[in-house]
Amino acid sequence: MAHPLSIGIAGLGTVGGGTLALLAANAELIAARAGRPLAVTAVSARDRARDRGIALGNLRWFDDPAALARDPGIDVLVEAIGGADGPAREAVEAALGLGKPVVTANKAMLAVHGAALAALAEAKGAPLLFEAAVAGGIPAIKALREGLSANRIRRVCGILNGTCNYILTTMRGQAREFAEALAEAQRLGYAEADPSLDIDGIDAAHKLAILAALAFGRPVDFASVHVEGIRSVSALDIAFADQLGYRIKLIGIAERTAAGIAARLHPVLVPVTAPIAHVDGVFNAVAFEGDFAGRVMLEGRGAGAGPTASAIVADLIDIARGRITPPFGIAGVLLSAEPSVPIAARQGAYYLRLMVVDRPGVIADVSAVLRDHAVSLESLLQRGRSPGEAVPVVLTTHVCEEAAMAAALARIGALAAVIAPPTMLRIEQL
Amino acid sequence: MAHPLSIGIAGLGTVGGGTLALLAANAELIAARAGRPLAVTAVSARDRARDRGIALGNLRWFDDPAALARDPGIDVLVEAIGGADGPAREAVEAALGLGKPVVTANKAMLAVHGAALAALAEAKGAPLLFEAAVAGGIPAIKALREGLSANRIRRVCGILNGTCNYILTTMRGQAREFAEALAEAQRLGYAEADPSLDIDGIDAAHKLAILAALAFGRPVDFASVHVEGIRSVSALDIAFADQLGYRIKLIGIAERTAAGIAARLHPVLVPVTAPIAHVDGVFNAVAFEGDFAGRVMLEGRGAGAGPTASAIVADLIDIARGRITPPFGIAGVLLSAEPSVPIAARQGAYYLRLMVVDRPGVIADVSAVLRDHAVSLESLLQRGRSPGEAVPVVLTTHVCEEAAMAAALARIGALAAVIAPPTMLRIEQL
Repeated sequence: MAHPLSIGIAGLGTVGGGTLALLAANAELIAARAGRPLAVTAVSARDRARDRGIALGNLRWFDDPAALARDPGIDVLVEAIGGADGPAREAVEAALGLGKPVVTANKAMLAVHGAALAALAEAKGAPLLFEAAVAGGIPAIKALREGLSANRIRRVCGILNGTCNYILTTMRGQAREFAEALAEAQRLGYAEADPSLDIDGIDAAHKLAILAALAFGRPVDFASVHVEGIRSVSALDIAFADQLGYRIKLIGIAERTAAGIAARLHPVLVPVTAPIAHVDGVFNAVAFEGDFAGRVMLEGRGAGAGPTASAIVADLIDIARGRITPPFGIAGVLLSAEPSVPIAARQGAYYLRLMVVDRPGVIADVSAVLRDHAVSLESLLQRGRSPGEAVPVVLTTHVCEEAAMAAALARIGALAAVIAPPTMLRIEQL
Repeated sequence: MAHPLSIGIAGLGTVGGGTLALLAANAELIAARAGRPLAVTAVSARDRARDRGIALGNLRWFDDPAALARDPGIDVLVEAIGGADGPAREAVEAALGLGKPVVTANKAMLAVHGAALAALAEAKGAPLLFEAAVAGGIPAIKALREGLSANRIRRVCGILNGTCNYILTTMRGQAREFAEALAEAQRLGYAEADPSLDIDGIDAAHKLAILAALAFGRPVDFASVHVEGIRSVSALDIAFADQLGYRIKLIGIAERTAAGIAARLHPVLVPVTAPIAHVDGVFNAVAFEGDFAGRVMLEGRGAGAGPTASAIVADLIDIARGRITPPFGIAGVLLSAEPSVPIAARQGAYYLRLMVVDRPGVIADVSAVLRDHAVSLESLLQRGRSPGEAVPVVLTTHVCEEAAMAAALARIGALAAVIAPPTMLRIEQL
């Protein structure tokens, strides 16, 4: 058997610690599949004293992750620090700059600096692998970049954040409001003390930006992703969606349109008949639509020490075996300059919930505004009567342009009988 | 860009023709992802005159597929002939014998001769790739062999035959009997004129044997797979399963047990809450359970020209990029000699349907036999009364050993009040 691959791990939190634990637990099997042993020989983390439940005694220790990356005894850097900039990026740039392979779980860094890092990796002939950055233990990157490599991809969509999916699943299952479900997720460790990266959709949008780059062969472009989180999803809307035959999920969608690539991450009403509607709890799912393979969906655990470590070590095995691919699947010079399409150009159906004063003529006024903007009603639901009081009215539309919907909504919101800002959610046939 | 990879395709039916069509349709994109053009330069098929709807004019033609494989102008052989032996195997052995990479969709050949062919490939240093042999357009082989390579796999299961899944879905959706649903599948082109390879479970069992070899790192062993098809599944049992909260699916399961590797392919009652219960129609699904990644499920189209070609060309792109792996994931000398476990050792729950004469004492007799064999009843269902006539009685058991169940069943079938051979189906919590 060939000589060991010497690995340096920067960051010993959940991801780095999990990787160490997996490499130790399955060492023999991993060596067989990699064709050589994978040996962690050095690590870097801020606090040497902290007990991580793993024996670190025989590993060389670096305070500076970039110094670890540059160490001549290290063949591969595993970056498990996190954060788009700072020490994570410095360490990755140091390794790639020396032509050393890098494996990272850092979606924020890849979403923001992925294009530049891929260019550096290519210039230096160094592999840059990031299976763990998207959908945890699901081999989604490999499925897209290699498994479906013969296909022109029409659309990628997915449930990419387990925290949000858990919260939405709990809200529906227990008819609870967002704040309560979030508090429970925090209590169970599914949400961070500061949950904004998750619940505002940033984390999932980072992943979507990476998937879109791979799917459509263009430089990662996080800035062009339209992002809305789940803070404003209410138990009432989840219940109405149920009545209409939909589930509300936080879904990322990147698709090829006639005008260019559209990428957006927001709460979606998806028909209960769609497979992705049944991906519940902390699970993630990613679906790809290829012109020859058709629709392929992958489902599994999107976070946690075990699944993330599984993805990182799979990348390490690829490096050990010499199974190498350009970071985004094709050479940098071949990346496309296809334009990004803004959310205003979306063609789709909509769900609207209005809180209106229950009196004659309100529906006529709302309908007239929609007609003026060429938005065609599909259904209207008004349950119960409370003359003179506020009642919810739910409407769904046929396919129209988002710009028209937004203009109509501004006028509807300004009607005297509409006593709260309207709720607008997008309907997708996934 | 590097020089083209020269490909010879043996067999121009659905699979070979689809591969030609895909390579032509997405040539530019494929060249970008492969790092070089993929050029089909020669083909082999029985009938030169047949119109296949594809321009073959500039391709060299071989009557003998083995001669195509040996042609010095061919870098890679795509074997799309089919059949475990005969010309398919001869061509593959000819190519591998010369150290030439082979891509094949031939599950029968791999299930029966996979171990020997992998040994030949390894001895000659020639890649042998077969993504298209299992689950069509779903990159299941790559997900298992590479994506989950860091995991010890506990279980693989899947819906591996679209024909059977279509028939079972139709039987349930339209409350039809097997023969009717089969006839419809044949009319729609989802089932062959001679459907036995599909409906008797052989095709799916071939695929399961391949997955089991990859999952557990042992030589392919088709002979050890227990196989039962769907001919004896009745509309009545599907309806009873529904009432009990189950779907009946033809599922292949390979799992590691304390005594060794168990692999079996048979109709299964799976709870409606299991994701695999909702994989309907011609779709396939494969689920892997890894010790670190947890459960990962992939779903998509398991057959047809497009999905199969997608898998074949993905393998060709791997070869063009030099992303190479031993055929079954590890070197032959490292393959395990873990024993196979017979079906009689299965530990699980069972569904029984008995046609009994409706008179007092029958249930007591059946219960006594089950008790004598230490089989514990979970539920009993007898709908309607017809004193003195035949009525169905449905029982479900707690977990017991298959050998005990089989012995009890023999005695139950011999009871005077039991007027037809009992139906026994296995329940799995997947």
